[in-house]
Amino acid sequence: MYIETRTRSILKAISWRILATLTTMTLVYAFFRRLDLAAAVGVLEAIIKMVVYFGHERVWNRVKFGKKEIPSFVVWFTGLPLSGKTTIADGVYERLKKDGIKIQRLDSKDVRSLFPETGYTREERNRHIKRVGHLVSILEKQGISSVASFISPYKESRDFVRKNVRNFVEVYVKASVDTCRKRDKNGMYEKAIKGEIKNFTGISDVYEEPQNPDIVVDTEKLSINEAIDKVYNYVKDKFLKNGRI
Amino acid sequence: MYIETRTRSILKAISWRILATLTTMTLVYAFFRRLDLAAAVGVLEAIIKMVVYFGHERVWNRVKFGKKEIPSFVVWFTGLPLSGKTTIADGVYERLKKDGIKIQRLDSKDVRSLFPETGYTREERNRHIKRVGHLVSILEKQGISSVASFISPYKESRDFVRKNVRNFVEVYVKASVDTCRKRDKNGMYEKAIKGEIKNFTGISDVYEEPQNPDIVVDTEKLSINEAIDKVYNYVKDKFLKNGRI
Repeated sequence: MYIETRTRSILKAISWRILATLTTMTLVYAFFRRLDLAAAVGVLEAIIKMVVYFGHERVWNRVKFGKKEIPSFVVWFTGLPLSGKTTIADGVYERLKKDGIKIQRLDSKDVRSLFPETGYTREERNRHIKRVGHLVSILEKQGISSVASFISPYKESRDFVRKNVRNFVEVYVKASVDTCRKRDKNGMYEKAIKGEIKNFTGISDVYEEPQNPDIVVDTEKLSINEAIDKVYNYVKDKFLKNGRI
Repeated sequence: MYIETRTRSILKAISWRILATLTTMTLVYAFFRRLDLAAAVGVLEAIIKMVVYFGHERVWNRVKFGKKEIPSFVVWFTGLPLSGKTTIADGVYERLKKDGIKIQRLDSKDVRSLFPETGYTREERNRHIKRVGHLVSILEKQGISSVASFISPYKESRDFVRKNVRNFVEVYVKASVDTCRKRDKNGMYEKAIKGEIKNFTGISDVYEEPQNPDIVVDTEKLSINEAIDKVYNYVKDKFLKNGRI
């Protein structure tokens, strides 16, 4: 959080007044060739303009026009393992950050590596997602948007997040189990099929498809960049309309 | 998050230029009684001043002087049940908020009521505090300070929070078990002694006293207002020195 100290504002006002008054005096002198009168105009101008400027600022302080609130929001990516959530979310985050939005990135792997004891039962997964929902709702209230990517397989905890957030955008990153399995270079799906990983979403645990997502991104049909564009443009249209930051 | 639109800035610049130039023209006319020359000075002034103003702004943009970063911080209250944590933390929060600091209040009862399944074993308590620590560390990085009050009885999780936060202020709210028990109008201590509440800090669960707290607030000796003052002044001296916001 940055502030401008009063000293800076005062110095800036003085340096501006010197520059501005010298300009006026030069002009008056150029027209009338009277140094004494140019100086008199200058002194009077300096005094009067400071009063006028102060009044001008006070009046504008009461004018609401042109002050715009940019709402904070939560873009929530849900989908099967390897559906493409993290990659697309990273891209959307980078573009929003470049736009000057105050934004936080949250990804399943980062949060889980910080809390390795978080398990994969239905209860533990629901709790995990609800806690992340609590976090993004506090951030949203403080004016900070989030881009979150979590498998978040259950409707219950996704609904909890939606309920606790004012501006919630649910992005369903869609791809069939077969497609995700083909993309999987680390053999997670194979391990899950063999039973070496338990509660693996799509194989040994259910993925409850979102019924009314705000956006569906079909990664079997769209390229990564097209998917990023689709989500970014939706967010931009919905929350950042009427000009740039 | 608020922004000033470009339209507002443009309108403000125009309204100021009209006021300022009319002032100059009036002055010139008052001195020289020549309306034609007053008008000529005015037109030239309007054009030249806009260029000079732009240059003035650009130069000041490169000047660091008088730009101050207010660091974000975490004020963490720890202590026995009924030691006075919540009351003092509320007071400190209100005063920091009044100072214009971006700040979040977090209290045990609010977070626990949102996640009623959180238990009271050592493991569950440590996890609970670590998760709150994660939250305040994200807030701190986003420029938002926190005032948190949690019994947080174990050194392990308090140290986790300290490690994950840049500016951590540990406030030990000190009162003996006897004093806290006397203050307890809801009979929690009595229930704990009878065994009706399990893992009750101070009775059936250990409270690991902070070894190097940044502040000790002894609520047997200080009034509530004195305690609030002590913490507030410490935070102010440490993070908000050199003038007001």
